[in-house]
Amino acid sequence: MSSTAVAPDSPQVVDLAGRARAAAADLALATRARKDAALHAMADALLARADEVLAANAEDVAAARAEGTPEHIIDRLSLDRSRLEGMATGLRDVAGLPDPVGEVVRGSVLANGLELRQIRVPFGVVGIIYEARPNVTADAAGICLKSGNAALLRGSSSARRSNAAIVEVLRTAATGSGLPADVVQLVPAESRASAQELMRARGLVDVLIPRGGAGLIRTVLEESTVPVIETGVGNCHVYVDADADLDMALRIVLNAKTHRPSVCNAAESLLVHADVADTFVPRVVAALQEAGVTVHGDERFAALEGVVPATDADWGEEYLGLHIAAAVVPDLEAAVAHIRRWSSGHTEAIVTGSQSAARRFTATVDSAAVMVNASTRFTDGGEFGFGAEIGISTQKLHARGPMGLPELTSTKYVVVGDGQVR
Amino acid sequence: MSSTAVAPDSPQVVDLAGRARAAAADLALATRARKDAALHAMADALLARADEVLAANAEDVAAARAEGTPEHIIDRLSLDRSRLEGMATGLRDVAGLPDPVGEVVRGSVLANGLELRQIRVPFGVVGIIYEARPNVTADAAGICLKSGNAALLRGSSSARRSNAAIVEVLRTAATGSGLPADVVQLVPAESRASAQELMRARGLVDVLIPRGGAGLIRTVLEESTVPVIETGVGNCHVYVDADADLDMALRIVLNAKTHRPSVCNAAESLLVHADVADTFVPRVVAALQEAGVTVHGDERFAALEGVVPATDADWGEEYLGLHIAAAVVPDLEAAVAHIRRWSSGHTEAIVTGSQSAARRFTATVDSAAVMVNASTRFTDGGEFGFGAEIGISTQKLHARGPMGLPELTSTKYVVVGDGQVR
Repeated sequence: MSSTAVAPDSPQVVDLAGRARAAAADLALATRARKDAALHAMADALLARADEVLAANAEDVAAARAEGTPEHIIDRLSLDRSRLEGMATGLRDVAGLPDPVGEVVRGSVLANGLELRQIRVPFGVVGIIYEARPNVTADAAGICLKSGNAALLRGSSSARRSNAAIVEVLRTAATGSGLPADVVQLVPAESRASAQELMRARGLVDVLIPRGGAGLIRTVLEESTVPVIETGVGNCHVYVDADADLDMALRIVLNAKTHRPSVCNAAESLLVHADVADTFVPRVVAALQEAGVTVHGDERFAALEGVVPATDADWGEEYLGLHIAAAVVPDLEAAVAHIRRWSSGHTEAIVTGSQSAARRFTATVDSAAVMVNASTRFTDGGEFGFGAEIGISTQKLHARGPMGLPELTSTKYVVVGDGQVR
Repeated sequence: MSSTAVAPDSPQVVDLAGRARAAAADLALATRARKDAALHAMADALLARADEVLAANAEDVAAARAEGTPEHIIDRLSLDRSRLEGMATGLRDVAGLPDPVGEVVRGSVLANGLELRQIRVPFGVVGIIYEARPNVTADAAGICLKSGNAALLRGSSSARRSNAAIVEVLRTAATGSGLPADVVQLVPAESRASAQELMRARGLVDVLIPRGGAGLIRTVLEESTVPVIETGVGNCHVYVDADADLDMALRIVLNAKTHRPSVCNAAESLLVHADVADTFVPRVVAALQEAGVTVHGDERFAALEGVVPATDADWGEEYLGLHIAAAVVPDLEAAVAHIRRWSSGHTEAIVTGSQSAARRFTATVDSAAVMVNASTRFTDGGEFGFGAEIGISTQKLHARGPMGLPELTSTKYVVVGDGQVR
């Protein structure tokens, strides 16, 4: 077997997962104080050993350049002292958050005297499959550790030297704080086989979270027997209602589209009520074009200079750039029907002064987050006050929307009696 | 295409799922009053149209007998007036439970003035794949309807006439109460293909719950791209600690094993601390044998008359009958290690007078329910006070342990502002 190919039946990932399970059993019992100390030790170590990490990263970047990787990918791959400081700060922030483990979710005394408590417990082993950015390595490890989960991290091949250096630093810091090194492990990224093994490790890995593009997420959903939390694809809509304050609508559309176009909570589609189309469509097109946005519009929009006629592909597209699909709709119900057909279920916003319209929109739009008179950009763990975020779930099982520390836990029932039988 | 074979690429299940989605959109907006009225109408209709249902059931039973089906399966398949009354009562009980839809799970006002609420919403479309018992058809339909979900029910082929009759009655009652008939639909059970289509209907079906034997559940877990909630396999352990009240231990072991041996919360394995083995092992073996139980024991147990020597297969076995695996362990840690290796993660019990032992056991056993001085038989939605139960989850994602109405819902975030942008 060559060093760059792992056979699909290789026991390697199974071995890593077995070690992760053993570490997870210890980690589940670790006090908050010990976990927080480990997080601070990890932050310290990342800065103290910055030279090692940056040297490994420089090798990754050089290899990527040699392969002709585009500059925006190189940028995502690159680390510098400031980005390392950001990673260290992220770990300290997680240390400052409440520990979800042990929280009593509900409790009661049953008629027969049994004391019933539902208690938050770690999942155990969390697998994360992600692309490019090596800062995810430290972020994900920190969030998993605080929530009591051993992390199996499978980053991209292009970042493998950076990820290996970061994980080595984190593991050493963990043992220095009295936790098993195997609370954080890197799954080799040299071949696709290791990702496939991770996806088939049901019973060893409790949950798998893919973080990356739509293609990666689709592959994991289709191939994994481990339970998956689907994250991140956002075809977000802004609907401007007949009763909208049009100045507010313009601000929200521009913010949702242009504040950070490359992220999942950016708006990708605009729907405008026919009653305000004559006034609003020319205004919003001018403002979007002024901001550098290409508008892909239906007939009403495409009548304007510079608007590209939209096809069905546009309604379903997550551009992640300075493009927006735009259509005029006869009423709120048509807007909701359009959203139900095309949305990825991430975030949709309505701009309206009508209480009735707001109520109908929030009740009938079936997405992780529904905004009334606010930008789609607010769907974010930090903005929601969760402190840390492992991703934004667009599925309905387990967690929906931004996932913080509690979303990385399960529960168990503890039932205490004095000899009760049925 | 013959009437008993559905091609794998048949659009049939996709069509049913599309109709379920449309019905689910209406059902999500239905008031509690309307849903409860529909549940009562369904209960009334099942009794009013009992003759139709019983006639269809008689055909299923006759066909099963003609195929030489064993009597205990015939019994599970058979309906009579009393079982129909049980189904009707179940529907009325669900009507009496609180509506989970709309519950505000958490809410706050963010620093920028945005009002954030996380609200319980239905999944949308719930698929249930189940075996034999036709009473599950009404139970599952009722629980799905109350939690706002359209149900796609895929029962066993042997119960297809009974299930078709029951679903026809429920659908007519639903429309009589102003709900779409498609809130309940039967997926044809004539071929395996329809189950496979249901498992691959990701995006149309929101969650799939298999209810049945270990083989069925494994198949669904391996083949489904729709998110699955794993239910029901229970290799439950009772551990008798050194500090146990041995009279209490005997009562609990006997109850856990013999009260209803065919269900998932029955005990399948017994572990005894070495310090009490000399006293307790002969007593418990005598009592179990007296109750008709075959003990499959390790060396210590197998030294006794009538005890069958256990193999590794016994430690992992869910007997669902009058058999129990039994071993002596040197200490609590060894008991926990045995449980971690062999348990299915359903329910484990400790019998002990030691607060420290109880604390260590509940902290380190990683199962859906952990009992202290109580029978494993209490892991049950009814016993826990949930009122209705769709199954007992043995996975960690989404729901763990008995699943009531709230476990059949997801959430969404509703964020209300007055023009906030980032």
